Parts: sequence; structure tokens; C-alpha cells
Amino acid sequence: MKITVHRKAHFNAAHRLHCKEWSDAKNKAVFGKCNNPNYHGHNYELIVSVTGQIDKKTGYVIDMRLLKELIKEEIELPFDHKNLNVDVPEFKNTNPTVENIAVVIWQKLKTKLPQDKELSITLYETPRNFVTYFGE
Amino acid sequence: MKITVHRKAHFNAAHRLHCKEWSDAKNKAVFGKCNNPNYHGHNYELIVSVTGQIDKKTGYVIDMRLLKELIKEEIELPFDHKNLNVDVPEFKNTNPTVENIAVVIWQKLKTKLPQDKELSITLYETPRNFVTYFGE
Amino acid sequence: MKITVHRKAHFNAAHRLHCKEWSDAKNKAVFGKCNNPNYHGHNYELIVSVTGQIDKKTGYVIDMRLLKELIKEEIELPFDHKNLNVDVPEFKNTNPTVENIAVVIWQKLKTKLPQDKELSITLYETPRNFVTYFGE
Amino acid sequence: MKITVHRKAHFNAAHRLHCKEWSDAKNKAVFGKCNNPNYHGHNYELIVSVTGQIDKKTGYVIDMRLLKELIKEEIELPFDHKNLNVDVPEFKNTNPTVENIAVVIWQKLKTKLPQDKELSITLYETPRNFVTYFGE
Amino acid sequence: MKITVHRKAHFNAAHRLHCKEWSDAKNKAVFGKCNNPNYHGHNYELIVSVTGQIDKKTGYVIDMRLLKELIKEEIELPFDHKNLNVDVPEFKNTNPTVENIAVVIWQKLKTKLPQDKELSITLYETPRNFVTYFGE
Amino acid sequence: MKITVHRKAHFNAAHRLHCKEWSDAKNKAVFGKCNNPNYHGHNYELIVSVTGQIDKKTGYVIDMRLLKELIKEEIELPFDHKNLNVDVPEFKNTNPTVENIAVVIWQKLKTKLPQDKELSITLYETPRNFVTYFGE
Repeated sequence: MKITVHRKAHFNAAHRLHCKEWSDAKNKAVFGKCNNPNYHGHNYELIVSVTGQIDKKTGYVIDMRLLKELIKEEIELPFDHKNLNVDVPEFKNTNPTVENIAVVIWQKLKTKLPQDKELSITLYETPRNFVTYFGE
Repeated sequence: MKITVHRKAHFNAAHRLHCKEWSDAKNKAVFGKCNNPNYHGHNYELIVSVTGQIDKKTGYVIDMRLLKELIKEEIELPFDHKNLNVDVPEFKNTNPTVENIAVVIWQKLKTKLPQDKELSITLYETPRNFVTYFGE
Repeated sequence: MKITVHRKAHFNAAHRLHCKEWSDAKNKAVFGKCNNPNYHGHNYELIVSVTGQIDKKTGYVIDMRLLKELIKEEIELPFDHKNLNVDVPEFKNTNPTVENIAVVIWQKLKTKLPQDKELSITLYETPRNFVTYFGE
Repeated sequence: MKITVHRKAHFNAAHRLHCKEWSDAKNKAVFGKCNNPNYHGHNYELIVSVTGQIDKKTGYVIDMRLLKELIKEEIELPFDHKNLNVDVPEFKNTNPTVENIAVVIWQKLKTKLPQDKELSITLYETPRNFVTYFGE
Repeated sequence: MKITVHRKAHFNAAHRLHCKEWSDAKNKAVFGKCNNPNYHGHNYELIVSVTGQIDKKTGYVIDMRLLKELIKEEIELPFDHKNLNVDVPEFKNTNPTVENIAVVIWQKLKTKLPQDKELSITLYETPRNFVTYFGE
Repeated sequence: MKITVHRKAHFNAAHRLHCKEWSDAKNKAVFGKCNNPNYHGHNYELIVSVTGQIDKKTGYVIDMRLLKELIKEEIELPFDHKNLNVDVPEFKNTNPTVENIAVVIWQKLKTKLPQDKELSITLYETPRNFVTYFGE
């Protein structure tokens, strides 16, 4: 009897889309206003989804307090009120698109979760643009 | 040509997380403030998702008025403004975690739906904690 | 490394549920107030979900500006502030239920997307009634 | 000790913006796509706000069940799944802009409320366009 | 130059509407399912609104971290995961309607805020029922 | 017969809270993580509220298309995907707190609106922190 539990979290960050292998002109052409060298920013809303068996005694897939704490330690503290390009090592050489941020979040959380749990991530860059990553 | 139709509903209920096989101390340690013996409560927001073929004549997977009525009879009337632990027989011996409530809802609705429809349930305990159950 | 990107859009339209093969009495019985011959209407909220590989250079599955423009051209311009039954050719002989509208949207967008992308559509007729279509 | 209680409701309707005193060309110029002669439509979300004293015994400003029933009788039944221009007498000679609909709703509800209650109306035509009317 | 800052918070609680001066029959007649002796519950969503001058140096009306902490101490800790009727002294002799809860919250916060600030409270009992209290 | 029409808009921007008259240490103490010298950012959601008489012919307080265009020209184009501290002249010497941003928006829009309209601004920095400015 597998079920998926979801936990919402959020962080506010600055970023800039930029490909270091390209000229400024090409970056401007491809990324438009998202390439602003002075950065812009977003309220990222995150949904962490964990799938597993329901424990017979607790009735839990996972203790939500532990999941909340894990998200705080691994994602909110290092990402919140940060400049993703400058302050967060994972994006030193990775363009912080919402796709790549979701993959990084998935990878950081996956290693900390029990191996028998499946993980997926939904990340809202804005209420109108978001991604889902299942880790395939 | 299969498609999934979703219908939102809601009920407001009190509950308490508690495992009868455990001591009060262990219950307190595991469930924390959710173990309050005087209960707390939630506005549960429910999404019922039914998958099937689109009927050629009606253009419906299922008549939403019937689905709305079914949810009202099976879920809203017995659960709304109730104490799940005390008033709802399904939770006499089942800890009313959001996971277990979703499984109970799925089971109650599944037996009433035509056999060729697939069913999944999304249940929000709060806007920040929710589950999805596909009935596997 | 496959990921799904989602883009929200919206259009406001009038419609009437009606099966031309049926008598007025049967239409009234089946579709109720949705059969009003003078039409009613909705704010349709649309989520277009595109799945594919993340491009190494851009960090994109698809350029969201292109996706936004595609949705505008294919869906918003022909559907927004229209009477679906009267003004939109796809519904001349197809009952504009939310199921059928989602299938039409999927078909219109699918032919315009690169072949290696998967497409699914979530369409809200109201905040309480919505559908998801993944393609056959 | 005055307090304001708010109750949400909703109705789905077709309408067309049109000024009978103007030529078709002027109507088209002023109202644009909202002037479509075949109509378009919206999910109207309504917030009814009633201000008054808290009753010492009930703790209520007004019984929400009565307010809900009043909104159903006066607004939802006559407006829901209707064409405002064609089916609703109040808009036979009044352009059904969201401003005018809000005023009509205020007038209909005000006469049914106890005289010592103040009334205001918030009406969403879309999640992006809405009005508030205090009845001044 | 006065401006209003708003901070959202939330707590989940059980309650029962009941007037001790009335018979059980009258309570049942007036409060209906809200009178369930076993309690039901809600996710209360709270908006605390503070009006004042913008400080020239900070650009703040009030430090949001202090306001967040104040709400946590005065409201969230004593109310969250509690039975309002049983666990919260303010409702020992006051019916915990959403109107009365809002007044209690206003009174608790008002005494802790600087005297030159105005305070109002919006409290959602459900997404469909809510109140606003500006103080006497 | 005065009524208020509201229009939603949005912009995504980076910013940093900093008082130039203070030492780095004092800035850090007062603004905490909001003082990050590398900036962070937000999705600002804006509600522009215009109060006036309903025009007898149009049924409008103001043509929403004009209001939408005004917000785009005056606010969205100069603020969206910008670094407020660096790219936007109004914040060269003004700390871009949500309070101050709201005042700047009010001032920019007020001069462009007809004199007989009243204006208020609600600006969300996050879904949990927001301000309302009436221009007193």
C-alpha cells in the first residue's frame, strides 16, 4: 500500500541565467531579460513528494516533522535569501534554471532519505512557471 | 482515449494521532502536539480523480453531478464537523493520519464507482501537508 | 535526465453542453443547467506540461518564452473571449465539455512541439472541476 | 464591538459588454473582444461582507448558514449558468460589467439583510480583475 | 505617510460552538453540526495587519521578524494543535466562534504592539468563511 | 456611486535591504539575511486599486485595458527582471523595502491617473508578507 506525502516549503533567491561558454550577445539573445548581469529574483515554492509504505504503527510514510527539518537543513538554509549564482556552490558551474535547481534539490534530498522511499520534486519559480522532477 | 477528471470537496474535522499499542509517553514522543488528548482539527481539502474513457455522446468521463453527490454521501456527510477518532467508525482502530484518511476515502469511493474507472485521491490536511493515493 | 516544465495560461469563454443527436428534453435531463440555450461561461485556467531532456547549454527543456508564445497563438487567441460552440471550429461537432476541450488543446499543441517532447494538459473549468490529459 | 464576517460564493455565467445607445463600431472600439456578439463567460467568485455587532449569546454577527442560504437564493440560483444579458432581468438595460454586477448584487442582498448590518461586496470576474463595492 | 503591513500565520485547532446558558436542544438548533460535543476543527489562517509610519532609516513600519515572533509567542504557541474550548483559557467562558477568536487575537496582540501602531486582524476559519476586526 | 476596481500584475526582481548611513555590522544586525550583499529576490504580486464613479455608458470606473497598459509601462517594464537597488533609479537612495516599493509604485501611478480617481496599492513581497498603501 504505497502512498505519496507532500510537504511545501519556500525560499527567496536572486539568480541570473547565463552560459559561460557563450558570448554576452548570445547569452542576451537566448536568455533575454533573465540574463540581467545585476540579477533578478524569485519566491521559489517547493513541494517535496515522498512515496513509500504506510507504517502500521504510526500511520506515517515518513514523519513530517523530520521531512520539514530535512528540507530546512538541506534546502532552505543554504538557498534562502541567497544569490544562487554567487552564494550556492552547486550553481558555480550550472546555470540556475528552474529545471537545474529542481535537479539539485532532488539530488541533495535523495541521499538523505531512506533508500526505500521514492522522491519527486515540484518547484515553482513563479505561480506561472514550474517544473516536476521524478529523478529518472 | 483516457482522461482524468478531478472534483474538489472539503470537510472540517477534529482528530488526534495516537497508537493504542503504545504508552502515553511514547505517543507523546512520536506524535508530539498532534497527540493532544483534547484533539485539534483541520480543514481537509479533497481532490477526487477519476480516470476513464470519454463517452462519445456526453463528452463526459463521469457526470460531475453524480460524482459530487457521491462524495457528499460517502465522505462529506459522515466526516464533516465530526471527530474522526470518536465519531467515524473507520478510525476506531486506525490512526487518523492524513495517509490513513486518504486510504479510507479511496476505499469508500472505489466500491461505488463503475469498475472501469480508475481512482486516485489527493487529500490536504493543511495547505502545506498533503497526500496522494493511487490505490496500488 | 527527463523533467517536466509547466506553464500556466488562461482564457475566458462561453459554452453550452449539448448533444445534437438528442432531443431537447434528453439534453436538458442529461446536462441540466449546463444545457442553457443562451450559454453560460467560465474562466478556463490551463497548465501545459512538457517533458523532455534538459539541454546542457541552456538548462532548459524548452524555452518558456516560446512555449508561452505557442500557447498564445494556438489556444489563447482562438479561444479567449469566444463562444466555444459558435466561434471555434473544433467544437462545431464536438460537445465542449472540459474533457473534450482538453483533448482539442492537447492535439493543437502536440503537432507544434518538437517530436521528442511529451505533452500533458491540465484544464480547470472552475477551481472545483478540472481534467488532466496525457494523450492516448 | 463591530466586526465584519465574509462569506465566499460563486457562479458561472456568460455575458457581453455592449452599450445599446452606441453603434456596433463604437461598441467594438470601446469594449474590444468583450463585445463579442456570441458572448464569452467567467467564473465569478463573490465575497459577501457583513458588518455588525457580535451577538453576546451566539458569538455571531450573522448566522453563516442563513447568509449562505440568502446568497444562494438571491444570487446563485438566478445568476449561475445563466447568460447575464439574456436571462437576468437586472441586466436587460444595464451593461453587465463587473462594476454593475457588483452593484446589482449589493442592492439585492441589502434589502434582505437586517437594517443594522452594513454590507460590502467583492466580485472577481477573473483572478486578475475584481471590484469592491461598499454601497456609498 | 502611513502604510499597512500584513503578516500571514496559521494554527490548527479543534473547537465546538456552544452557549452554556442554553439547553442542549437549543444549542443543537442554533449551532447545528458546529455543536458536535466531540468537537470538529479547522486550519485557521491569520493575517495580522499593522499600520504606522515608515521609519526613515529602516524603511520598515515594523520589523517583520519581530512581528512574526510576536504572533508565534502570543497566538501560534498557545492556539496551535489545541482544543480551543478546553485548552485555551480565553475561551473557557467565550464561545469560540471565528468572530470571538478574532477579537481575542486582536486584544492579545494590541497590548504587545507599540502604542502608535494600529492593528487589524483577518481570520479565516475556512477558505469560505472569514472575519476582519479593526478594534472598537 | 463609488466603486473600487482592482487589477493584478506582477514583476520578479532582486533586491538588498541596506541603509547607507549605517555600518556593515549595523546593517547586518538590523536586516539579517535580507542584507546579503549579493542580493536575493522575490516574485512581487501587485494589486492596483482605483476608486471612482461608474461611467453611465461604459459601466466602467476605468477601462481595464488602459489600466493594464499603464501598469505595464510604469511598473512592469522598469521593475521586472531588474535589480531594484542597481537598475531602478527610484531606489538609488531609498531602501527597497516592500513598504518603500509600494510608495514608489503609488506615486508613479497616481500622476498618470485621472485626478478624480483614488488609488491604493497592495504589494506582496511573498505570499506571507505584504503591504497596503492608500497614499495618505
